[in-house]
Amino acid sequence: MDRRSFGRRVLAGGAVAATSAGSLSLASAPAAGGTGAAGAPGGAADPPSTAPPGGRVRHMRLCAEKLADGRMAYGPERGRTTVPGPMIELVEGDTLHIEFENAMDVPVSLHVHGVDYDIANDGTRHSRSLVEPGATRTYTWRTHLPARRPDGSWRPGSAGYWHYHDHVVGTDHGTVGIRKGLYGPLVVRRAGDILPDRQFTVVFNDMTINNLPPHTGPDFRATVGDRVEIVMITHGEHYHTFHIHGHRWADNRTGLLQGPGDTSRIIDTRICGPAESFGFQIIAGENVGAGAWMYHCHVQSHSDMGMAGLLLVAKPDGTIPGYDPPHEHRDRDRP
Amino acid sequence: MDRRSFGRRVLAGGAVAATSAGSLSLASAPAAGGTGAAGAPGGAADPPSTAPPGGRVRHMRLCAEKLADGRMAYGPERGRTTVPGPMIELVEGDTLHIEFENAMDVPVSLHVHGVDYDIANDGTRHSRSLVEPGATRTYTWRTHLPARRPDGSWRPGSAGYWHYHDHVVGTDHGTVGIRKGLYGPLVVRRAGDILPDRQFTVVFNDMTINNLPPHTGPDFRATVGDRVEIVMITHGEHYHTFHIHGHRWADNRTGLLQGPGDTSRIIDTRICGPAESFGFQIIAGENVGAGAWMYHCHVQSHSDMGMAGLLLVAKPDGTIPGYDPPHEHRDRDRP
Amino acid sequence: MDRRSFGRRVLAGGAVAATSAGSLSLASAPAAGGTGAAGAPGGAADPPSTAPPGGRVRHMRLCAEKLADGRMAYGPERGRTTVPGPMIELVEGDTLHIEFENAMDVPVSLHVHGVDYDIANDGTRHSRSLVEPGATRTYTWRTHLPARRPDGSWRPGSAGYWHYHDHVVGTDHGTVGIRKGLYGPLVVRRAGDILPDRQFTVVFNDMTINNLPPHTGPDFRATVGDRVEIVMITHGEHYHTFHIHGHRWADNRTGLLQGPGDTSRIIDTRICGPAESFGFQIIAGENVGAGAWMYHCHVQSHSDMGMAGLLLVAKPDGTIPGYDPPHEHRDRDRP
Repeated sequence: MDRRSFGRRVLAGGAVAATSAGSLSLASAPAAGGTGAAGAPGGAADPPSTAPPGGRVRHMRLCAEKLADGRMAYGPERGRTTVPGPMIELVEGDTLHIEFENAMDVPVSLHVHGVDYDIANDGTRHSRSLVEPGATRTYTWRTHLPARRPDGSWRPGSAGYWHYHDHVVGTDHGTVGIRKGLYGPLVVRRAGDILPDRQFTVVFNDMTINNLPPHTGPDFRATVGDRVEIVMITHGEHYHTFHIHGHRWADNRTGLLQGPGDTSRIIDTRICGPAESFGFQIIAGENVGAGAWMYHCHVQSHSDMGMAGLLLVAKPDGTIPGYDPPHEHRDRDRP
Repeated sequence: MDRRSFGRRVLAGGAVAATSAGSLSLASAPAAGGTGAAGAPGGAADPPSTAPPGGRVRHMRLCAEKLADGRMAYGPERGRTTVPGPMIELVEGDTLHIEFENAMDVPVSLHVHGVDYDIANDGTRHSRSLVEPGATRTYTWRTHLPARRPDGSWRPGSAGYWHYHDHVVGTDHGTVGIRKGLYGPLVVRRAGDILPDRQFTVVFNDMTINNLPPHTGPDFRATVGDRVEIVMITHGEHYHTFHIHGHRWADNRTGLLQGPGDTSRIIDTRICGPAESFGFQIIAGENVGAGAWMYHCHVQSHSDMGMAGLLLVAKPDGTIPGYDPPHEHRDRDRP
Repeated sequence: MDRRSFGRRVLAGGAVAATSAGSLSLASAPAAGGTGAAGAPGGAADPPSTAPPGGRVRHMRLCAEKLADGRMAYGPERGRTTVPGPMIELVEGDTLHIEFENAMDVPVSLHVHGVDYDIANDGTRHSRSLVEPGATRTYTWRTHLPARRPDGSWRPGSAGYWHYHDHVVGTDHGTVGIRKGLYGPLVVRRAGDILPDRQFTVVFNDMTINNLPPHTGPDFRATVGDRVEIVMITHGEHYHTFHIHGHRWADNRTGLLQGPGDTSRIIDTRICGPAESFGFQIIAGENVGAGAWMYHCHVQSHSDMGMAGLLLVAKPDGTIPGYDPPHEHRDRDRP
């Protein structure tokens, strides 16, 4: 089990970045343990860090490999792959070229949701955009800003909480590749969007979270006042309901309320089905304080079978009231 | 079967209120049969009743007990518990202290969605916030108004259609407690929100509605023009689709349209999974008149197995065109 | 298999229209192959065609019959029924009288979602609004504009992506009628809504799309720049997730963004359950170009079992890059 696979946002420049986790992030400085931008917590008066303007041409490397335990994983290079795959962050207007290597012994692909790609970059068998074992190719993803069309209607921008996954291993829909771990998060921001202090990815993949064994988390760590971003992706066969204790979000594009007149539903539980994704930012412990706050699938048999983890929100002094770390809940966002 | 468990909104002051159904409501006068505030129907010109300002400190009693038929239920005291548990209504800014008694022979808890509570009021085993058999404790829930954070983003207010349930009976996720009836509705309003004339709670709990036997409703009564509020909660194992005939609502925070430019989806059917909740207000019979309007889960096997009831909308003279009450559809909102 | 059942929008006047597909549409001129209004593609500068003012009284004929292959179908007359049934389009304010004939040997009905009907037009057994074998009756549907109620709240208009289906064949919820094909799309527009160039209906009905055999589509054809409208309906027993490659939409009432400040979620995948419906307009190939773009249920076993089709987006010269039509993917929207 790779303990470094959660909540890592690290430095990436405008070119291939050989970072410790292979993520492509918007952070302006390296940071460990889930901390990205050195943004002020939600409660402070300093302006938060925000996404820069888009329009850059960016490059990264990605490979797919089989792990010794049977999982399949994406990562920047052999031996450094993780489940979920690395967080990729873009800003509307960016273009990303991914130099992709198939280090497995079966054909694999990279199919993405939400952003622009021509049919030759679809990552499907019928479009012949998969990669044979040992081969390399470049996948190109583009993003765009919202714009008014000549007919007066609006073209939405690419911003959103998206994801990528294999589309060919096992079946023409990538059922085996996805089941074994070939998936990862993609966030596209608008210029000016507030960046989180910590960022965590939760994938409900069949009856697992992030392909972990049941009852083993993952648990995530934050401090009261941190702006925490959760990217939630579902895969596989089953529907789930994602629930987090003590915190709520807006069921809209950003998870944030636009203002007091915004009619978006404020929720703490959301039904989700395979290939859906959403994300939101919360202020850790806002109005509720520090604690070991559960998050879990609220389908009763799923939570009973172990689809649950903890958002460990510490006081500034590092203590978590009432929390006695059990052996089966390992903390996964510290290396 | 307790016929008093549906659609009852009764007087409750700022302190413990020993009312006939134990609800904590916003009504300013006692009223039977689902009628709460003496608001004007939607078609009348008088201004409707609205929620008062929040900020009060309120108190109520709640106990959990096992019923003779095997159900488990919340209510104001032994012998007066119901499934669903009593409707609790708050206004943003209110604080509620619940003096909670465990009248069962196993540990039980009270876990709430949507509002604020510190980790010692989480109602979970790992936070040691459950209640042993025969013991009593106070759970405190707080609510807050929307506010601008120092970083410029918005903190949503607590308003919404929420719910409470056990989190420890049977499993650490309360699977047996919920299955047997330990759940109830919670509505948090903004000051000035329009209050309904009648209010009904529908809980799709596994293959039942409100833990009733199949094909037995519950049926609800209203008169054309009544402002009817439905609070819809899902629990258990299965997904459902809630559908009501002849009436529609906005899929947003209030279920009401803000104005003609509001882009909220207008729907009459909605998928829902365990622990999701939503609510809405409709004007009974608006544009369609009186009648026995079905509501049901639209998953075909679920409706065929009896997850269906009637919204009985009468003319002002009390008659319902074309309605011949069958024996198996008992009217449940009259004492 | 009736190849004429998809994507057909044809002329219909204010009275009974005996058109080739029996649809009741808003098009101002007849057109084949899924093209309705002669609207300019999204990329052109000409203003698009829009919905006319409502308020008309319209008439159409509809019958239900059993097909030789066991399906049941709605259509304008015996021998011309299709699965899904004909597209019906109205504008807010219109009234529609449907002269309905039961050409089957069991009672059947017509139940509609989203629009107004009195209880005698509910299409249910308990309201005695079904039709005996060989009998004929008229169902009347009404629609309305948004309006401010006397109490200050807003009544939503009837606009939306709706649908109709049987409610009595097999069970009191029409489970057998729906399973075998008795369903169809209904679109209610606001005056001024942009009309699509092509319009396709996708019904996830149990494990089929439009009751077709697995792995047989349907495939749909468009040209880059066409404004394509997809009406998506779910029926039966299972939940699904609708996904389309290379294209996204706004998860709101119209599927269109109101402007850059609109917080609607932009999505390419959506969970859906029985009797839910939604719709959206996309510009074919916008930002991604021509290609054979898959759409499918993203529940892995469902797509593997064949719940998939293609949106074939051609260049203006008619070619589709990289597309080699396989035998099992028949093009269904050309007669």
